[in-house]
Amino acid sequence: MPQLAFTKGQGTGNDFVVLADPDDELDLTAAQVAALSDRHFGVGADGVLRLVRTAASDDPAAVAARGAAAWFMDYRNADGSLAEMCGNGIRVVARYLLDRALAELDEDGVLPIGTRAGVREIVPSEDGYAVDLGVWRLSGSDPVVHAADLEVGRPGLVIDVGNPHVVVALARDEELDGIDLGRAPTLEPAPPGGANVEFVVPAEPLVVDGVGRIRMRVHERGSGETLSCGTGVAAAALAIRHYAGDGAPDEWRVEVPGGRLSVHVEARADGEHVWLSGPAELVYSGTITLG
Amino acid sequence: MPQLAFTKGQGTGNDFVVLADPDDELDLTAAQVAALSDRHFGVGADGVLRLVRTAASDDPAAVAARGAAAWFMDYRNADGSLAEMCGNGIRVVARYLLDRALAELDEDGVLPIGTRAGVREIVPSEDGYAVDLGVWRLSGSDPVVHAADLEVGRPGLVIDVGNPHVVVALARDEELDGIDLGRAPTLEPAPPGGANVEFVVPAEPLVVDGVGRIRMRVHERGSGETLSCGTGVAAAALAIRHYAGDGAPDEWRVEVPGGRLSVHVEARADGEHVWLSGPAELVYSGTITLG
Repeated sequence: MPQLAFTKGQGTGNDFVVLADPDDELDLTAAQVAALSDRHFGVGADGVLRLVRTAASDDPAAVAARGAAAWFMDYRNADGSLAEMCGNGIRVVARYLLDRALAELDEDGVLPIGTRAGVREIVPSEDGYAVDLGVWRLSGSDPVVHAADLEVGRPGLVIDVGNPHVVVALARDEELDGIDLGRAPTLEPAPPGGANVEFVVPAEPLVVDGVGRIRMRVHERGSGETLSCGTGVAAAALAIRHYAGDGAPDEWRVEVPGGRLSVHVEARADGEHVWLSGPAELVYSGTITLG
Repeated sequence: MPQLAFTKGQGTGNDFVVLADPDDELDLTAAQVAALSDRHFGVGADGVLRLVRTAASDDPAAVAARGAAAWFMDYRNADGSLAEMCGNGIRVVARYLLDRALAELDEDGVLPIGTRAGVREIVPSEDGYAVDLGVWRLSGSDPVVHAADLEVGRPGLVIDVGNPHVVVALARDEELDGIDLGRAPTLEPAPPGGANVEFVVPAEPLVVDGVGRIRMRVHERGSGETLSCGTGVAAAALAIRHYAGDGAPDEWRVEVPGGRLSVHVEARADGEHVWLSGPAELVYSGTITLG
């Protein structure tokens, strides 16, 4: 049984087992990923980030990224299933590649990383790293959201940031703190494939020095409540910005149970890009015998 | 900031950061233990097991154990508080000391380990390691136990196995599976200092080949529901053995969410000793920078 060297990393409490596999030699099964991610019998993580050089990988997404990105992020959920992107995980990847001198910023100060959602651009930021999540959009057919210990159904706004989110705006901190997210919120109508649900409270006042400020809790499909969800943070800021209407700021600070993230909206020729920035830490290194 | 080498171990899903500190050089603060135990920002564990040679430690429990045990198990809960004993943790300690050749069995095949509850004897067993938890006793003043999604209050039996437990016998698997242990059970009257609460279902038939068989879920004070609790497993078997009355077996198999443990009652001059046996695994090794 091979000895596997790994690094544990986290961003706002969203945590990952990072595996450097430059030559694509590691054929991880779903069962192995689930065993690594188990918090009592394994290492414990929200997911596994395997890093492969695009030149060495024959994954279609890695092949497509060749030339644009040197590294491909093979992200797996804790249950072993494949995932497209992870807004917190990709910052941990950037931190890992740069700290270990496996990659460096290009002449524009950018580190491009291949993902199953396409090549994503990362730049160092004041609070850690910022990633361009691409063009966001409203998706329509907004559901009514019910949650345990939340009186009456609330309107949800469907926002797509590469993956689907339903954002519910609440009026008061007490309301946000009182929701029981130990049980999954229900959506009427339920979107096919489900969605992550974000509950958000605007700060009072909402905007200070041109920066919008909100607090958020999130229920991720398949995972339950988590300390942080990168794309959910972006969706939450975009929803409140949408509700705020004309003159709403392009800069947002979002408090999640695991810390603070920032969202920046940038108008480009192909639409409004949403940038997510925040911390990324490498916590420890270890070796495990892979079963 | 010092680099700290550690090993992660677990027994029936009860998991621990193991630190070898033979010369008592590591002055771990409660905050450092809590940071190590954090499952998202640290290594993640139910507690920390620091191993010190009794000859080097000036902890009163270690000093008292000199001559009887070469090693002292300094056990800390995940919140950083000191703890007396841990029925699953001490098996992980035995596995660690023997695997790393830091200790060997004495001429009687026993490894004695100092704990804050006194010196405990460990012996290898078919299923891993067995530990003598000492003399058990009924404690009287049995409370009525209420739990979420469990109809009406149920009688609890108070059993002391070095620490206090309240055991509730249920009739059916469906009843055990249906309890919501996300909320703490309430006890009337509430014992001072609280207690761990075990909910138990006897198998049908209860005894096969002289071995009693039960299933258990546990709510640990301060921790919530856990995958396993060593002393709770012993208390659960002792309670059902007590209810079964004359002729009840001295051997028990207990299924917990994290696996299977065995309990053996041994009559000795000073009373009935309860032995707990089960698996102990070393999962991986790592190094972390201690903040």
